[in-house]
Amino acid sequence: MLKVGIIGVGTVGASVANILKDNKDIITARAGIEIEPVLGVVSNLNKKRDVSIKLTDDIDEVLNDESIDIVVELMGGVEKPYEIVKKALQKGKAVVTANKALLAYHRYELQEIAGDTAFEYEAAVAGGIPIINALRDGLTANHIESIRGIMNGTCNYMLTKMINEGVDYDTILQESQELGYAEADPTFDVGGFDAAHKLLILGSIAYDVDAKPEDILIEGIQNISPEDIDFANEFNYSIKLLTIAKKIGNQVELRVHPALIPNSEMIAKVDGVMNGVSVIGDKVGETMYYGPGAGGDATASAVIANIVDIARRGKGSPMLGFESDNTENLQLMPKDEIQTKYYIRLKVADKAGILAKIAKALGDKNISIEKMIQKPLNKDQAHLLLSTHTSLEKDIVEALDQIEQTGVVTCKPVMIRIED
Amino acid sequence: MLKVGIIGVGTVGASVANILKDNKDIITARAGIEIEPVLGVVSNLNKKRDVSIKLTDDIDEVLNDESIDIVVELMGGVEKPYEIVKKALQKGKAVVTANKALLAYHRYELQEIAGDTAFEYEAAVAGGIPIINALRDGLTANHIESIRGIMNGTCNYMLTKMINEGVDYDTILQESQELGYAEADPTFDVGGFDAAHKLLILGSIAYDVDAKPEDILIEGIQNISPEDIDFANEFNYSIKLLTIAKKIGNQVELRVHPALIPNSEMIAKVDGVMNGVSVIGDKVGETMYYGPGAGGDATASAVIANIVDIARRGKGSPMLGFESDNTENLQLMPKDEIQTKYYIRLKVADKAGILAKIAKALGDKNISIEKMIQKPLNKDQAHLLLSTHTSLEKDIVEALDQIEQTGVVTCKPVMIRIED
Repeated sequence: MLKVGIIGVGTVGASVANILKDNKDIITARAGIEIEPVLGVVSNLNKKRDVSIKLTDDIDEVLNDESIDIVVELMGGVEKPYEIVKKALQKGKAVVTANKALLAYHRYELQEIAGDTAFEYEAAVAGGIPIINALRDGLTANHIESIRGIMNGTCNYMLTKMINEGVDYDTILQESQELGYAEADPTFDVGGFDAAHKLLILGSIAYDVDAKPEDILIEGIQNISPEDIDFANEFNYSIKLLTIAKKIGNQVELRVHPALIPNSEMIAKVDGVMNGVSVIGDKVGETMYYGPGAGGDATASAVIANIVDIARRGKGSPMLGFESDNTENLQLMPKDEIQTKYYIRLKVADKAGILAKIAKALGDKNISIEKMIQKPLNKDQAHLLLSTHTSLEKDIVEALDQIEQTGVVTCKPVMIRIED
Repeated sequence: MLKVGIIGVGTVGASVANILKDNKDIITARAGIEIEPVLGVVSNLNKKRDVSIKLTDDIDEVLNDESIDIVVELMGGVEKPYEIVKKALQKGKAVVTANKALLAYHRYELQEIAGDTAFEYEAAVAGGIPIINALRDGLTANHIESIRGIMNGTCNYMLTKMINEGVDYDTILQESQELGYAEADPTFDVGGFDAAHKLLILGSIAYDVDAKPEDILIEGIQNISPEDIDFANEFNYSIKLLTIAKKIGNQVELRVHPALIPNSEMIAKVDGVMNGVSVIGDKVGETMYYGPGAGGDATASAVIANIVDIARRGKGSPMLGFESDNTENLQLMPKDEIQTKYYIRLKVADKAGILAKIAKALGDKNISIEKMIQKPLNKDQAHLLLSTHTSLEKDIVEALDQIEQTGVVTCKPVMIRIED
């Protein structure tokens, strides 16, 4: 029998314990051994929980129990779980975590510390979708050309509603909070940080690139307006909070931001709270993985898959997908060297000469316009919505600064990257 | 260094050898060891091939070469590769195959023979999509409720063209043959047999059910007509050749047939030559896997993923996903006990009393009609297109027989199952 201790018995932790009991028959048949959740750690023993395992508020009870083979870390945070997981690994206990923040900051140290001990984290990226499994084990023949992910269900729910129902950002945020899809402080989700943590993990498996959240471009969905939605609908785009990992020469782009994607693409069809990850390999072409990115049972499904894997074969694949260093030796691309197409929204005074100034500012930076719509806003102002051909991020940022400085716009310009 | 022998150096075999060389850098970094294709077996040594490995026409050269660690079987067929693979396993060589027919007939014997030696087959189902990996390793926490797959690119290409462009079956078949998407004798694809072989493999991993192609319901797409396409378009359905594995109580349905699926479902969006597999687990909910189901490089990507897996850890997961028997002890459901909704197309004489006879035949079997369209065909005949509520397969078959016998139809009735 394999004994499991669970540190953090909230929604996911309770699901892990309950599924190990509910589905014991099939899990035992698949693993070849009984897997028993024996002890859970909570901070408040008095809180009522819908789970039938022994509980303690002392983490050391799990760490010091020599009969516990696998520690499941579901407490959240970064430094505290790092210390705990480290101790567990040093005691030779296998570790399974769903903690993306921990991995966003400490995955390479943890790989080092784990050594031959299993350290798994399927649930940390895209919840119930076995994407770590696919990328780390299923696509090993390929140089990965790109990964595009919709990995935050809160943002995807909000953007889907905005696109399909014309609801504005503030209204849908409030509705999402009432439904429990968004937190009281929604910044971690809507600001793109949650998705960025997941992206960094996938970026390591695909490219062996060590980066931290502060190294990469992260933008949230807070500035998406009904005009942007109109533009998207007009030109058959969806707007998604996209995580992008892409190899260009010997550099890797890692970025998180809202993006316009053609509706014809499979990933554009991932709606509502669902997650989707599209991976392009140089040999296999595009494969896509779709499913629930959150929820107690879906996340627990991924945690238990890791436990079964450990039960079957102990340490499995190399933690971050590489048995030895990636000799391609890829470097993170600086943010302002990114090249893509851009959509730009400008609020302008509705009078002669304005467009000429804007066109000049763009032209001076060699930015050429692909599509443009002007929409009257009121008797004095109009919205100018335009998209560009492929341009350099640095040039776009400078051109928009220039446009702002010339005083032709009445609001700060908004830019959304286009991925097609 | 790990040495690989390839039996069958056609399109896929050549891709395996070439990718192992082209992508040697990343594959070595991921596997932790060099993987070298050392010998390929072909039946005709004189044929020119775009591959740079040593070739032989003697299979025993691979089997008897003690330095070869892994045998890749890509020769096709059933009994001959079975004997060869058996010999390779008995000599302690790991085996990787893309041969779905071999597995459709001999997977349980091969599991027995392999024992602790690795026997892998990711490429046998849905080409480049790592679906074996997902189902066998990624979803182990779940009782699988259903699997619905689009796993034959030829059929999906043809049906997509029929739906989107109104092309008829014979025209699109000829076009597919000219494009190389369909064989000169297309029966294996359009008749559903190829998809059935893949379904049987997934059925074993999900349910531990041992069945052979002749045990299950297999229908092809040959009878799909423009009227069916019209009905589908009218009611917002797609028509797909669907492989279905579904648990109902302690029985398992395994069936392959064209099906009407609501366009809103993610799997209905899998178009053209692409494959998609939707899996519903009792805990994770729906996950879907999408990608290329055929092609030399895509299939080779899956073969090499297995080779890397073997390089990393020898024998990995249990071959068919169960370390011990599934104690649920599920049985294959007899074909005529299947229950679903049905679409029925009848060509009838356009005169009074006909509909009453048809309604009676259906009513006598307790089949109730959900939707109906009558379309004039010429001055004497009309098409009656209708869908039913959930009914028993046996009742539908008998009702259609009854309708045919009463002489109210001028052609054999056509029935397509509806999956929603």
